[in-house]
This record gives sequence, C-alpha cells and structure tokens, in this order.
Amino acid sequence: MRLKDLGEFGLIQRIQEGCLVKPERVLLGIGDDAAVLDTGGDHLLLASTDMMVEGIHFTLETATPFEIGYKAVAVNISDIAAMGGIPLEILISVGLYPDQEVEFVDELYRGMKTCCRRYGVNIIGGDTVASPRAVIVNVAILGRVEPGAVLYRSTARPGDLILVTGDLGASAAGLDLLLNPKPVSPEAADRLRKRHFRPSPRVEEARAAVETGGLTAADDISDGLAREIQEITSASGVGALLYAGEIPVSPEAREAAAVYGKDPLEYALFGGEDFELLWTCRPEAAEEIRRAVAARCGTPVTVIGEIVPAEEGIHLIHRGRRHPLGKGGYTHFAEA
Amino acid sequence: MRLKDLGEFGLIQRIQEGCLVKPERVLLGIGDDAAVLDTGGDHLLLASTDMMVEGIHFTLETATPFEIGYKAVAVNISDIAAMGGIPLEILISVGLYPDQEVEFVDELYRGMKTCCRRYGVNIIGGDTVASPRAVIVNVAILGRVEPGAVLYRSTARPGDLILVTGDLGASAAGLDLLLNPKPVSPEAADRLRKRHFRPSPRVEEARAAVETGGLTAADDISDGLAREIQEITSASGVGALLYAGEIPVSPEAREAAAVYGKDPLEYALFGGEDFELLWTCRPEAAEEIRRAVAARCGTPVTVIGEIVPAEEGIHLIHRGRRHPLGKGGYTHFAEA
Repeated sequence: MRLKDLGEFGLIQRIQEGCLVKPERVLLGIGDDAAVLDTGGDHLLLASTDMMVEGIHFTLETATPFEIGYKAVAVNISDIAAMGGIPLEILISVGLYPDQEVEFVDELYRGMKTCCRRYGVNIIGGDTVASPRAVIVNVAILGRVEPGAVLYRSTARPGDLILVTGDLGASAAGLDLLLNPKPVSPEAADRLRKRHFRPSPRVEEARAAVETGGLTAADDISDGLAREIQEITSASGVGALLYAGEIPVSPEAREAAAVYGKDPLEYALFGGEDFELLWTCRPEAAEEIRRAVAARCGTPVTVIGEIVPAEEGIHLIHRGRRHPLGKGGYTHFAEA
Repeated sequence: MRLKDLGEFGLIQRIQEGCLVKPERVLLGIGDDAAVLDTGGDHLLLASTDMMVEGIHFTLETATPFEIGYKAVAVNISDIAAMGGIPLEILISVGLYPDQEVEFVDELYRGMKTCCRRYGVNIIGGDTVASPRAVIVNVAILGRVEPGAVLYRSTARPGDLILVTGDLGASAAGLDLLLNPKPVSPEAADRLRKRHFRPSPRVEEARAAVETGGLTAADDISDGLAREIQEITSASGVGALLYAGEIPVSPEAREAAAVYGKDPLEYALFGGEDFELLWTCRPEAAEEIRRAVAARCGTPVTVIGEIVPAEEGIHLIHRGRRHPLGKGGYTHFAEA
C-alpha cells in the first residue's frame, strides 16, 4: 500500500499507537490542534507544529518569501487560537537551496517576524539546513492557556449550536487566482491574495469567547468547513446539521466564484486555509459570545448549524433540501 | 550574496535581530543547544528543534527508514542533554513522497518510537505532509531542568578543564564507510554504522555530572570537536588549549582511519555527529565528575584540555607542537 491510498488521517491513526511512554504531564497528545501539557505552573502549556513544503503548500513562482514566512507562522498561531490559548514562542526550521540569494532569506524571516510581532510571539530557536530540492519551513509553536479555558474538539454535545468567526472561502478563491489567473476586480484580487497568504488567526476572538464560559468545543478551519465539521463530530461522537444559507461566504470569494463558474459555497465548504475558528456552544450562550467577540475584535460570529446525535449523521440543508455532507475537504496524500 | 557564501553561522547572526518581542518568560532564546523558558513551575522548560533532509543528512540508499527515524529523535535528545535537562516530549513533522510505501513510514516511526522509549520521551503531536522531492523529518523537543542545573555554552572560564564523554570519530568514520565502502572488519563496520545512525545522547551522564555541581559549561558534539570548542569559547569569551594525545578517538574510527589513509584525529576534530558531550569544569571538580558518570552510566569522561584567556586563542598541542585550531568543522551551506 502507498501513502496516497492511506491518506493523512489513515496515516495518523496508524502511527498513534505507542506514542505515550511517560504520560504524567501529558493531558492531551496527538489528535487535536495542539497538545496540552501540565508543566506545574498556573497555566497549561500548548504545543503544536506545521510544515510547509515548496511544490505542495506554495511555489516560488506564486508566493513571495515574505508571504511564505508570514503564513508559516500564522497557521501555527491558529492552532493555539483553536485551543483557546495565547501563542508565545516558536522554533523555526528552514531548509534552503545552497545557492539561494540571501535576500530571499531576509524576506522569509521578515515575513515571519512581522506575523510574530503582530501576535506578540517570540522566536526562541530553530535550525537552518541546506535542502537541495525544495524550500521547507517548519514551525513548532508553544502557547499557554488557563486550565479552565482550554478548548477541545471532542466536547461538542447534541443541542449545541455551531458558530464560525469571520467569513469563509477567500483563501481557496485566492489559490484559484494564483494558479489560474482570471480577471477579477483589482480590489478583490488584492484581498484574495492577502487572505491566502496572510491569514488572521483568531487569537483575540477566541479569548473573548472563552471568557464568556459558553463555548463547548473548537477547531480551526485549515482544511475546509466540511472537513473540520467532520473532525469535531467524529472526535465528539456526535452528528451535525449545517444551514447552507447561513454560512458566511466572503464577498471576494463570491466574486471569484462567478468568474470561475463555481458555487461560492464550494470554496467555503471544501476550500480550506481560511484559519477562521469553528466553535460549538450551548444555545443560550451564542448571543453573548457573538457580542463579546464583536465588542473586543469587531469580528462577526455566525450561527451556521447545530450539533445532533451521532446517528443523525452530518447533513447540509441547502435550498430546503437535506444533503449528506461527504468528506470532500482537502486531505494531504489522498487523490481527491 | 548566496547562502553558501554566508554559511550557517553567518545566517544565524543575520536573523537573530528582532526575535524577542515579549521576553518575559524567555530566559534564553537563540544561541545555545536549546531555549530556556520559565513557565512558572518548579522546573525550567527547554525547547529545541532539528531538521533532517534527504540528500543532505541521509540518503534512502544508505540509511534504512528505521535509522532515519531513530537518529532524528536522538539528535534532538542530545540538545536537551547538552543543557543538563531531561527530554520529555517531541513533535514530529514528516514530509513523504505521495507514492511512498506505507511500510517505509511504519519503519520510520518504529525507529523514532524505539529511541523515544529508550529515553522515556512522549510523541505528543506532529504534522504529516506530502513532499514530492525529498523525505524530510523535523523534530521539535521539549524537556525540563531544575533552575540551578541548567548548563550553558557561555559560562566557561579561564582555568576550567575541558572534558568529553565517551569517544569521538566513529560517526564520521561510519559516514566514510557508507559513502565509499572499503574493507574494515565486520565488527567495526557494524559498530561504525550504529554510531552513525543510532547515536546515544548522554542524558544520564549529564544528569550525573550536573549533580556534582562542578560543571561550568556544556555543548553537544554535533559538528565536530573543533567546531564545538569554537562555539563554547566564542560564547564564553575565552580561548582553549587542547591536548591532541588525550582526545579519546574510538577504536573503530582508528581502524577505519587506517583503511581510508586518514589521521584518526581528523575524524574526532572535524567529523561531527558523535553526540558526545563537551563540558568544562573547575579543575578540582574533574575527578568527582568522572567518578559520578562512571558510577551511574559506565561512560568514560576524559580531560582533553583547558580553557585559557581569549587572547591566547584556540590551540591544539600535537606531538609537542602548538597548532592554531581553525574552524574546519562541518558547517551547512559553507563550501568547506
């Protein structure tokens, strides 16, 4: 069997066994956006890592080194935001061509440092190696969270509402525009590129929402809404009902969808890399969460569905009809 | 300017500026074997990362996936050992060819888990991505150390003795044997390969030595003794005098040196990847350190030189003559 037949999630299941040999301080290992550790202080330690490889996550033809650096840091910060935590430090490993221009490296690190400054994150170490065949950027991130504030994927309950921050689809539409440029308005083109390469991890939004005490589960939207709904429901042992008409699709993604002849909802459901947050909460808490996030950050929070018992599965109500919602989200290795 | 002209250490200097934006809990950032953080508990947190890339650190023709996995974890554990700490958790990022056999991945993780089990280290997370041009393994490691026990590179003082654990040169001789096989004895061939791919990070040795209270500075030997002496002296603002005749060269490296027509000392000084520890201590503490490490681990500790004032530079006393000791250690990017 080959990796592309197994898929990323099959692979993770395969390697998960025997990972914990001394679990004393490990509250949560593999299986959420970040690991959770008890290091004996007032806060829990969060730890996560993400790798970006040239030819898969970016190309040197379509991304500037600044953008590659910015995004590599931002996607890691998003993992800490998904757990309800505050990002604090990163370690950066970079693989570079031996004959790469030093200016490329300067710009790569300027992108990383710009994102770090914006979120108050320290670069505390790393590794720089020669890589003769591809540029590689790996970031490992540490963060902290109060023991009562940590958000998991696995704790959504039937009757909870499903919420999403901001709007969806712009990053995927931005990717279409990069790979197959077509005429959209200059303003939309600019915003779509920015949404693809400079996502805004929702750290403050999560902190505002956590403080209301009303959230029950969380995940960040890295692989498309459909895939993340799958992640939360499968981890929580529940099902979900999504209202297609309520899903906030970004206006620029709508504009791109018209140009590319796509359904804008496709970008939102299966596009990925929006790095918005997907939350669940008790129904009575939704309004307070919405208000708290709007007051602190100005970011909209939208109710897009509800958690149902597992036996009801995952469905999308679209134009009055109920559709089973397949995986379809982007998964590494898998053919489609 | 291109990266290979700048060199790894030039690059690190170039990117170091502006890395700390909120330094409250960062006791030490870039510049040692691991970062040191105060997370509010009884222990300090150590964090480090190392990346291995196919074609640079290994080839699929010469290394088994088990060996690649084992080594990727071991080199990270060595960084924690260098700081005097206990390795606790790792995050693993792996880049793999989409058409890679699943058995390759199983063996890669079996190698990592074997090393983890040996050192009591938990795998708490990671990332698996497609990498169309090279296998990549990045490990980020966390460890802990008592505030009074942490060892730095920058604290060696004139008059200190220089110590090394175990023996040197076998890993570099093992690499010669892999890249250009020549007839050495089967026992030596076997041991040299093992020393190259399955190094034994000196965690317990460091703990035993730290408990004596006599160490003044430490570094692990990843880039050859000459380079690591440079690291310690440059960080500490001192010089060093090494006694060539005292440097413990592994017997197998001597055997290989005879076959390859090399000076065995070359392997020890410029070879690298031994992952022994280089320590400094007050002269009166050396004997107690040697005894404590032998009693706990059976590992020899050898006095190989002394720290001198910076203005005396770095010299090697070899057959009664004093030679300035150049860099010569392996550095990434640099031509030689």
